[in-house]
Amino acid sequence: MTIDKIKQKHPLIHCITNYVVANFTANGLLAIGASPVMADEVSEVEEMTAIANGLLINIGTLNQMKVPAMLAAGKAANKHGVPVVLDPVGVGATSYRKQVIQDLLQQVKFTLIRCNEGELAAIAGVAWQAKGVDSGQGTIDTVAVAQEVAQKYDTIVVVTGETDIVTDGTIVEQIAGGHERMTAVTGSGCLLSALCTAALTVEGESTANLAALLQTYKQIALEAANNSTYIGSFQVEILNGLEKYARG
Amino acid sequence: MTIDKIKQKHPLIHCITNYVVANFTANGLLAIGASPVMADEVSEVEEMTAIANGLLINIGTLNQMKVPAMLAAGKAANKHGVPVVLDPVGVGATSYRKQVIQDLLQQVKFTLIRCNEGELAAIAGVAWQAKGVDSGQGTIDTVAVAQEVAQKYDTIVVVTGETDIVTDGTIVEQIAGGHERMTAVTGSGCLLSALCTAALTVEGESTANLAALLQTYKQIALEAANNSTYIGSFQVEILNGLEKYARG
Amino acid sequence: MTIDKIKQKHPLIHCITNYVVANFTANGLLAIGASPVMADEVSEVEEMTAIANGLLINIGTLNQMKVPAMLAAGKAANKHGVPVVLDPVGVGATSYRKQVIQDLLQQVKFTLIRCNEGELAAIAGVAWQAKGVDSGQGTIDTVAVAQEVAQKYDTIVVVTGETDIVTDGTIVEQIAGGHERMTAVTGSGCLLSALCTAALTVEGESTANLAALLQTYKQIALEAANNSTYIGSFQVEILNGLEKYARG
Repeated sequence: MTIDKIKQKHPLIHCITNYVVANFTANGLLAIGASPVMADEVSEVEEMTAIANGLLINIGTLNQMKVPAMLAAGKAANKHGVPVVLDPVGVGATSYRKQVIQDLLQQVKFTLIRCNEGELAAIAGVAWQAKGVDSGQGTIDTVAVAQEVAQKYDTIVVVTGETDIVTDGTIVEQIAGGHERMTAVTGSGCLLSALCTAALTVEGESTANLAALLQTYKQIALEAANNSTYIGSFQVEILNGLEKYARG
Repeated sequence: MTIDKIKQKHPLIHCITNYVVANFTANGLLAIGASPVMADEVSEVEEMTAIANGLLINIGTLNQMKVPAMLAAGKAANKHGVPVVLDPVGVGATSYRKQVIQDLLQQVKFTLIRCNEGELAAIAGVAWQAKGVDSGQGTIDTVAVAQEVAQKYDTIVVVTGETDIVTDGTIVEQIAGGHERMTAVTGSGCLLSALCTAALTVEGESTANLAALLQTYKQIALEAANNSTYIGSFQVEILNGLEKYARG
Repeated sequence: MTIDKIKQKHPLIHCITNYVVANFTANGLLAIGASPVMADEVSEVEEMTAIANGLLINIGTLNQMKVPAMLAAGKAANKHGVPVVLDPVGVGATSYRKQVIQDLLQQVKFTLIRCNEGELAAIAGVAWQAKGVDSGQGTIDTVAVAQEVAQKYDTIVVVTGETDIVTDGTIVEQIAGGHERMTAVTGSGCLLSALCTAALTVEGESTANLAALLQTYKQIALEAANNSTYIGSFQVEILNGLEKYARG
């Protein structure tokens, strides 16, 4: 199981993420035995990425100070062979986010893009009605679009939703199950992107490792929904579930 | 009930808020079926506000990068007819906060100011002993001062405390009850301001909708105090209570 | 007990800290009856520190905007006789952090440095293998190095780990016990630094007050481990435990 491998490796994950989910993300990484470090100052990110096992770039609450840090860290990751994950939070919402994502995709070679359907549509440039940072509504052939994006940027794409998709452009894995309440907690997608970053640091085929991780995350959502009635307790149960599965 | 209406409308709430309470605020909005989006980069806030149903401006952890974003977002809200709420966190504590609040009040027409007694006193320019971001101590005729501020800025004013006050300058509603432990959790006021923003997006008289929301929030505080002994669990129970009432 | 004294004094603690732990820190301070205020804009920190009873400077998620605020606040604390605590988060990880810590130590007289072994080694300039913001691995005579650092900077040093150390350079107190799960929650060290700041505001010998606080914190860790199985609940239990001990 991917989470077991992560726990054994204890990877250091450098997160450039948003302040809404930073605490939840750090505790989620700790729950599976990874070691989070949050740093987004351009003066230090290259050094931090160089000692990390994986880098996460998440564009929620981005600003003009963080963007140069994201670019510098991403390039450092490429230079040092550190896997780097992009979470294009709400990219469809503003032209600034679209521009930043374009810059990131042009200057950094990502190992993985982890997004929802609306963000996928924005990256692919297909029509979609985004709603803030929610996925929004639209009708696209998600698998086909995910494969195109994966091929265009030579990356793995994970699209999460009712059914999750993992594709490297050729292989496609689909993971059903889970619980809709997972999307009703802030940062559940952001945390998943951090967990995916950790998953890229362990041995084995990345697409298979990611598919296994997504399966576990869906199982954790189900159990958290069973173990709690409302969102406050549900959030606590996600962290509990991650540690439970990491202990095996 | 206001929370029911919010759940039916599922409004998008653009929050420019502080990093201490961002997670709690986002989850509180999600608990009542609203959709939070946090964005505070000046390059994108106008676009984000334009697609939002409501805008919250909260000056906790403000800085020189966020202030221009607050002003730009507030003006965009006015232009697009989006209700905009001001939470003047700790305005009495420093002259910088006072200046920022003056600038905001001069350049943005607020639909609502949500504050505690100390912050009200600072906005009204009456004597008060603030203590950091706590309400502090003093003796003012809170209802009269709230009415004056509401008239001066042509806005609704909500002052929370042992008894909450809602006034548009003429109508005054007072809501008693609740539990003192609510003030012993960080961000309970900040979250309430976000919930009030959501309340301004639904049909009906705003003062009545706000009074009903405040009543529910006080009830949630009571139940959270009954369902928990200490602060960690109390914080979780606030989120649980919000979702419970939103489900009806 | 130190926590009792803090609850009686209700000190205002100005925190310049990182966005990962800000919420947890604020609630932890509230749990023991202290009043947190987070402010990191250079235009207001001097005024905020001047009205505070204690100042915490924590360099997690530091950036070029926060560093001048840290320096200004630290100097204001010295000027007004406000105790000031340094938490050199992950100082060994990057040269930028090392430089910032050097600048802080040169320009501000700290009342206390609260760190882990790896951070102590970085400050002392002795060999150590840091790992991001974790303590990392190495072999140093922790007590001797802590005493040297305390003497060099005329400060108290608290090094936390399996056994905690408090020293002013002469007196050495060692506190055993606790639970290893405390290090598996993000911000447990950062929160402790905030609690130590509050401890410096109460009457009595600082080293003894700090030793008593560390003893209580270890006891809280033990009880939290007993009262919870996994990290989500464990984090909640730490806050619960703080309030429980503060109530006495």
